[in-house]
Formats: sequence, C-alpha cells, structure tokens
Amino acid sequence: MQQLRKLDYGESVLVWDEERKKSFLFVLKPAGELGTHKGKILHDEIVGKVEGSLILSSTGARFRVFRPFVTDQMMKVQRKTQIIYPKDAAWLVLALNIKPGMKIIEIGTGSGAFTILLAQLIGPDGKVYTFDRREDFLKNAKENIKRAGLEDRVVFDLLNAGDPFPVKDVDAVFLDLPEPWIAIPAAWDALAPGKAIAIIVPTAEQLKKSVETLKEEGFAVIDTVEILERRILVRKKEGVRPFEKMVGFTGYLISGRKLMKCRKPVSSNSSGCPSL
Amino acid sequence: MQQLRKLDYGESVLVWDEERKKSFLFVLKPAGELGTHKGKILHDEIVGKVEGSLILSSTGARFRVFRPFVTDQMMKVQRKTQIIYPKDAAWLVLALNIKPGMKIIEIGTGSGAFTILLAQLIGPDGKVYTFDRREDFLKNAKENIKRAGLEDRVVFDLLNAGDPFPVKDVDAVFLDLPEPWIAIPAAWDALAPGKAIAIIVPTAEQLKKSVETLKEEGFAVIDTVEILERRILVRKKEGVRPFEKMVGFTGYLISGRKLMKCRKPVSSNSSGCPSL
Amino acid sequence: MQQLRKLDYGESVLVWDEERKKSFLFVLKPAGELGTHKGKILHDEIVGKVEGSLILSSTGARFRVFRPFVTDQMMKVQRKTQIIYPKDAAWLVLALNIKPGMKIIEIGTGSGAFTILLAQLIGPDGKVYTFDRREDFLKNAKENIKRAGLEDRVVFDLLNAGDPFPVKDVDAVFLDLPEPWIAIPAAWDALAPGKAIAIIVPTAEQLKKSVETLKEEGFAVIDTVEILERRILVRKKEGVRPFEKMVGFTGYLISGRKLMKCRKPVSSNSSGCPSL
Amino acid sequence: MQQLRKLDYGESVLVWDEERKKSFLFVLKPAGELGTHKGKILHDEIVGKVEGSLILSSTGARFRVFRPFVTDQMMKVQRKTQIIYPKDAAWLVLALNIKPGMKIIEIGTGSGAFTILLAQLIGPDGKVYTFDRREDFLKNAKENIKRAGLEDRVVFDLLNAGDPFPVKDVDAVFLDLPEPWIAIPAAWDALAPGKAIAIIVPTAEQLKKSVETLKEEGFAVIDTVEILERRILVRKKEGVRPFEKMVGFTGYLISGRKLMKCRKPVSSNSSGCPSL
Repeated sequence: MQQLRKLDYGESVLVWDEERKKSFLFVLKPAGELGTHKGKILHDEIVGKVEGSLILSSTGARFRVFRPFVTDQMMKVQRKTQIIYPKDAAWLVLALNIKPGMKIIEIGTGSGAFTILLAQLIGPDGKVYTFDRREDFLKNAKENIKRAGLEDRVVFDLLNAGDPFPVKDVDAVFLDLPEPWIAIPAAWDALAPGKAIAIIVPTAEQLKKSVETLKEEGFAVIDTVEILERRILVRKKEGVRPFEKMVGFTGYLISGRKLMKCRKPVSSNSSGCPSL
Repeated sequence: MQQLRKLDYGESVLVWDEERKKSFLFVLKPAGELGTHKGKILHDEIVGKVEGSLILSSTGARFRVFRPFVTDQMMKVQRKTQIIYPKDAAWLVLALNIKPGMKIIEIGTGSGAFTILLAQLIGPDGKVYTFDRREDFLKNAKENIKRAGLEDRVVFDLLNAGDPFPVKDVDAVFLDLPEPWIAIPAAWDALAPGKAIAIIVPTAEQLKKSVETLKEEGFAVIDTVEILERRILVRKKEGVRPFEKMVGFTGYLISGRKLMKCRKPVSSNSSGCPSL
Repeated sequence: MQQLRKLDYGESVLVWDEERKKSFLFVLKPAGELGTHKGKILHDEIVGKVEGSLILSSTGARFRVFRPFVTDQMMKVQRKTQIIYPKDAAWLVLALNIKPGMKIIEIGTGSGAFTILLAQLIGPDGKVYTFDRREDFLKNAKENIKRAGLEDRVVFDLLNAGDPFPVKDVDAVFLDLPEPWIAIPAAWDALAPGKAIAIIVPTAEQLKKSVETLKEEGFAVIDTVEILERRILVRKKEGVRPFEKMVGFTGYLISGRKLMKCRKPVSSNSSGCPSL
Repeated sequence: MQQLRKLDYGESVLVWDEERKKSFLFVLKPAGELGTHKGKILHDEIVGKVEGSLILSSTGARFRVFRPFVTDQMMKVQRKTQIIYPKDAAWLVLALNIKPGMKIIEIGTGSGAFTILLAQLIGPDGKVYTFDRREDFLKNAKENIKRAGLEDRVVFDLLNAGDPFPVKDVDAVFLDLPEPWIAIPAAWDALAPGKAIAIIVPTAEQLKKSVETLKEEGFAVIDTVEILERRILVRKKEGVRPFEKMVGFTGYLISGRKLMKCRKPVSSNSSGCPSL
C-alpha cells in the first residue's frame, strides 16, 4: 500500500502548527533539526512516521507532519519574482485544458511556481518547456522544481521575448511576461491546431493589447476573467464570517484557442496553414 | 503528429459562433445535420477538417470547429442537478492535490460535471469512484461521462449518505451532498493518511457544521473559501470593463487533510490508527 | 406628531408585496385603482391609513403601504438612460461631503436618479444645479424629480460638455458624461477652494484619462473605487447564503479635491488663484 | 462668499502629503507645530490661507491644507472600538432614508464615527440620540464628535441593551451591538410608522437571528447586503489595475421598515397599533 509508505530521509515534509495555522517545508536529513517559534523539531523523530502523525517539539508543542501538497510547494518556492497564486493557477489549468501526457510551453518561468503545478498535472509522460530571458530566474526556478521532485518533466531554457519557440505542436502555451503580445505570433506557430493559449497581465492596458493581438494573430474563443478568493473564518463560538483581509487583485487571466487561417509564417519551420 | 489528426465520425465536436459567443457540442455522424440560429451545418463538412477550421452554415454564417475542452464538457452536461462550476472545480482540484494515477472518491455524483474533470486529470492509470443515492442521477451522469469519452476511468455506484465507502486507501475524497457531515467519518476511514477531503456547501449553517465535524473526526489544515469569477469585457473601441452580470455565489468550498489519531473505526476494514 | 400624518390624495405611495418582494410606486387619486399581479388595489382604501398598514387587494392578497424612500424613488424613475445605482450614489454622497444647505452642480442629469438623492440630502436650503445637453433627458428628469416632490431644490438647464458652468463657488461638482475630462477645467472654475469633484465612468480608459486630467487641472486627494454590493439571502429553514445573481459592475467612481494654483482662468468670472 | 473664508485658529484642518497619500488632522493653535515624517509644519503659516493652498514644511516638503471632509473625521476618530467604515456608512444612510431635520436613534455609539456622519446629514434642525452601555465609550465618542464640531446635534446617554428607548416617534433607528435582536422590540416602539431600522453584524449567525427577530417583531421590506470596496490604482506609466490589498469584510448590513400591527407595547408610552 503505497500511501502508508513511511516518511524517510531525503523526502520533503510539511510540518504544521494547527494552533497558529503556520507551516514549515523542508527536506528530512539524518540528525537534522528544524527551529520553530515553539522549539526544535528533530528530523529523526519524523522519519518512520506516516503522514498526519503528531510530532512534539522540544518545548512540547504539537505539530502535524505531512507530505507537501502542490499548493504548499507553489507558495513556498524561493521567490525571485511575483508568483502565480493558486487561485489563478487553478483557473489557468482548466483554461489550458491540461491533462496527463501534454506538452506545454511556458514563457516567463519566473520563480517556477506555476511550472510545478503544470509538471504535477501532465504526469510522467508529459513535458513542460519553460523559458525565461534571465539566467538567474531559470537557475532559481530549477532549484524550486527540483525540490518538488519534478525536474524530470521540465526542460528549462533561455529565450528572448519575441523569438520563435524551439518546440512545436504543443498542446498549450502560457505567457507571463511584461509584453505578452510580442510572443503571440510565436505561440500560434508552436501550438497544435485548436489548442489553448493563456496569458496573465496586471493592467487593463496590457489586457487590451493582448486581446487585440490574439484576435489579429489567429485566436478565437477569447475569454478574460479575474478571480477573487475570499477566505471564510469558521469558529464554533464566534460564528461564520469572511476574513477581514483579502488579496484584492493579482492579475487578469486571458485564454483563447488557435484558429486555422492562412497567414504568413513567422519562421520557416512554422506549422503554416494546413488543409483547411 | 497526433494533434493534426483530422476530425472524424464518432467524435464530439464544438462548433463556435465567434460573433455571438455561442457554441454547440455534438457527436459527428454520417449525413448528420446541426440546426443553429444561423442555418444548418452538415456533419460531413466537418469530418476531415483539423481543429480551428472555418465551417460555413447553409446561410453562409461563419463558425469554427474544435474538439471540446473539459470546461465545455462540464458546462454542456445534461443537467439533472446543480453542477459544480469550473471556477469552483478548479480550486477543488488544487485543494485535493489531484495528480495522474490517483484514486478518488466522489460522494454526490449529481450530473457528473466535476466527475468529468477528475477523470480527465487522473489519466488512464487513475480511477474515480463516484456514488449517488439516486439511480436516475447515476444513469444520467454515466451518459454525460460516456459522451466525454472518460467512462473507462469512472466507477459508478449507489450509496446512501452515512454508509461506509466500499473503496479504501484513496488519495482524495470529495463530498457534495446536503448533509456532508454524515459522510465525514466514512471519508476518514477511506482516505490514506494525510490525504485530502474537500466539500462544497451552499449555506453558512452547513459550512459551520461541516468544519466542526471535520475537526472532531480527525482532520486538520482546514480551509474555507468562496471563489468569485469576474468576467472582463475587452473591446477595441468601447474599452475595458467588467461585465455587468456576474454569478454572485455558488458555494463555500472546504478542504482539510486526514490526521492519524486513535479513534473507533466505523467499520471493520477501517485503516484504524497505525504506527503513530 | 408629523409622522402619524395619514396618507392622503396627491401623495406618492409604495405598495409592497412581501411574499414576492415586489413593489409599486404611484400617486394617490380619488377613485384611483392599481392593477397588480394579485388583483386590484383601490386608492381610496389607502387614504387615511398610516404607513406600514395592511392593504387587501380585490383577490384578498396582502400588501403593505409606505411612503417611498429615496432609494425607491431612484430605482423607479422613468429611465431614458442608465441610472446611478444606490450602491454607487451612497459612496458618492460621502466622497462629495454632502450636507444640508450645499450648492451642487451635476453635469449629466440623465434620468435624474442621483439628482433626487442630492436634492433630498441638501435640504430646503440647498440647491442642485443639474445640466444635460439633451432637452428630452432634462424634461424626463424634471418629471421624475417632481414626482419625488423635490423640484423646488433643483435648477435644470441645457449645457454642452466643455462649456463654462453658469454657477460659481459651489460646494461640489459631479460629472456623469462620456468624456468627463472635457468638463474638468470648468469644474475647477466653479468649485469653491478645497471642495470636491466626483466622476463616474464605465471603462478603464475613461478612468485613466479622467484621473490624469484631474491631476493636470489642479485637483489632489484623488481616489478611485468600484463598489460591489452582494445581497444575502436569509431564510429560517434553508439558511444564510449570498444570492446567486449579482450586479458585477456599474462604474468606476473617482473623487478629488480642488487645489489652489495659479492657472489661466477659463472664463472671466473665474475664482482664479487668490491669496496663496 | 462663505467658502473663501480663510482658515483660522480653533478650526480643524487636514494636511495632505500627496506624494505619500498620507494626511494629518488637527486643530489650529497659535504657535502650534505639527511634527510629520517630512519635517515640522507651523500652524501660524496655515492660518489665513484658503483650502487647497500649498504649505511647506521645515524641510521644504510640500503639503496641501484642507478643511476635513466627513470621511476624514470618521476615519480619524480616537478609536476605542471597531468603527463603521465609510463604505458601509454610506449604504446605511440610504437604507435609513436620512434627510435634514430627522430624529435618529443610534444604539451602540462605539467611537462615534457613524454618529458624526449622521449628525452632518441631519443638519442643524435634526437630532441624533446615541446610546451606549459603556460610559468610557460615550466619553470618547463625545470628544470625537466635539472635534468634528457637531456636538449640538447629538444627545449622548447610557442605555443597556433591551431597555426601552427614552425617545419616541423617531425617523430611524440604527443598531450596532452584539445582540441586536434584544433591542428590536424597543426599536419598533420608538419608530414612527413605516420608518427604517438598520443593523450591522459581523457573523452569519447574528445576521440570521436579527432577520428572524425583525420578521417576528413587525418589520418588513427586509434586505441584507455586504459592501465590497475595491480601490483602483491609476498610474500614467504603469497603467490601471485594482490594488493588491483589500478589506475583505467588515459586516453584514440589514435594513427593514416598521409595519403597523397589533402587538403588546413594551412600555406604556408606546405608539401601539393605531388606526389600521
């Protein structure tokens, strides 16, 4: 029974303080120690336990240990950039029609948070090709994805916005860069017929230019949303109410599907305009 | 190149009217005809085309043809019940930490919209066990999932709320029923250690009782949200603005993870309280 | 005791169907009849009653009678244009620092819904000067405001966007027109020092241009919001939850305060740049 | 021309730092000094200026001086309690149908923020009767309202929740207390026929009990909302987008109107059940 597999050295674990709703993500090492706001936790005490077990710190504080979920991995990446938040990432997964085995291009690796989710969902038979113009971002993202144990499914490379994509006939393209419209023709060329593009932008001006470029460059079924996540506080005595604090905005999410149309290819190995 | 595969008889296709943002989902049949608000479309004209191609109706109106995305399949199910909307389904996918190969239990099949998404994401190696207490709902959902081509990954069965689940050591449990708290002990028994439960409920009262029961029955890392999706209208001339109409509420989404604790098993084949 | 004043002929009344949450606004006339979805109501049966009394229709259906509130008057205006909704009007009242006795200019009378609220709040000693470029709008608005019994406090006139305002040293200016930036210099001239301007616009592009023009033309403390009103359904048995339907967007609301600065007056009777 | 009245000793003024969007509210005193994050401002330099004038601090930083608006006064009260925020206060003003000359009862003075708004809007001929069970809250609120220059229009007194109100035939009642349902019968007795009650509560449970009690105790036209205010960032270069941070929730707002019905009066001078 694979799920009863005991926690072992070399694995990432999440230690959870239920009282303060606070968690720690780290790799189990022999003789390792985790310093918390409530005393020390010894890695050796975690090893051999199953997920959900109780762990006591050096001061007797109660923690629970888990394998991290993909949202934990996303939120705990080493951040060199703004990340795609789970609420938006979730919508994008459906907009891009993600399924196991897919080949996906991501332009704008950033810190790799969304890359982790994509890599989890495409499974061992899929592949995420992720590009960034900054080598330091790629290096950091690579470490984040390695920590999530998903490096076998991800190909990292440098790419300048506007350059043709070195992979073709992909099932989905995601753009997260300041001027996404520059990359839209290359996205059209790289996508298999009818497949999806999705874009995230922070401002109304970028939104407008992106949508106009999508229409001009052969995309349809274009949709734009923003997602508001309201967290609700549920307490036995005090009662039910939304939280006072809320993230008011992260970005506009755009999606569309590739049309077949006769247009001038942007590069010689373009998929062009086959068999209409 | 699998993606250039031409559209063929027996496949589901989506025909899209870009002007009116209206679509039709149907199965291609020899000599078949689709009646639209803008004339007839002949199935035979679609067969042999690639996705994204232009199709003209009998009145010369322009449509585009696509293979349906999972959100199209969800929104176009034959509805016998309220469905889980894509905005909520997307959040639940992350809360349940869905990945290829997982075994998932869904209690409350309803019309099967969320079942379709789960079946797509777990891939050919995973399995969705979906239960409903109403045979007519199961029958309708089965047809919806068959239409989506995902019936091999789904097991349907009758189950009364509160009965033990006939599958164990699953990776995720989702509850969509009027009194989800009744099914929480059985969910604990069926889940592998540390795995996720998620619940959708429409009212604050149901939310409170669900969260309290989760706490009592051995779940932690409990979170509740509601998701608001605002669609944005992007028009070249008139400019950018949110739509006037909006879905104001669909449900409260609850998630949690199974704790290991010594409690009386609800059935003899319970996973009990191993090796704390 | 003024409030126990009985309802009389010539007064506007609101008849309310609690069961269907539906209301009717009309003027009481001798021998008048109101046709409803649940039978006839005789005006003569209302006269002599106090507010909140029970009225039975010809079919025995139960209604309650009230004097209309200002929000009833706003929502029930004869509409020739989009109206300012109460949720937005309420925010604007505070942004404009409305109080009894104020002199206010409104550019873009429309159907007069917001005019009614302003007229109620400035009291008998204040004055609302409202302008529109369309005579038919002014005529309709005048009737709406007359029906609300507030015509003594409102001055109506034709004005083209961009023309100087014929009133000066006012306490507040509100702009509701397609190109509000055209009227901003005239608003500066008309406002007393430090007083407020507020603007409503539907698109991000209009918002940007309005805010930029405010900054250039001598306004500060500029703020922009949008107001979302979620109605909540409270039912004894079914429980508490937000409504499914919601108005997703009506407009962006902008406010600012006039700065003293030396600029060329747009007209000779401008307040100019006194005593800095 | 009253509005050109120069700023004078004894007046409250608002000094505004446009760069940091930060303001200071204080009373002008001879030889007074205001310490800011950007140097000192001398009161004597403000006196004699008109609103909107430029003021330089001791370090040469630029500030603008204004008379405070009612929202400045509300947000800058000395807080001993949670306050009613302007977004909610604005909605309540319309729900209570506030107009000049009205007599209003407020139960739960708190810090007096909403009291200030009510006092401004009812004008010199109206009266706000505000009650709290805590003398220290009343004392603090009284100082806040005095600072706003509105003490002539407000009567403060101690009252325990559930006690009959010492004023009758009022035009509006507002309840802000932990168990508002206790005060609903007394509110019915105090209100003139057909007049409005409004209530603010933080939880779904309090909302439900309040609405049920309103229905039982002779109120109709009951409505519940929550107001979400999204602030928008408008920048020439970076573009238009909502702010990242947002207040997610403050309270549920309830309103209703008094029905005439035959019920046992809670006190001898009740308005009872006249002439139905």
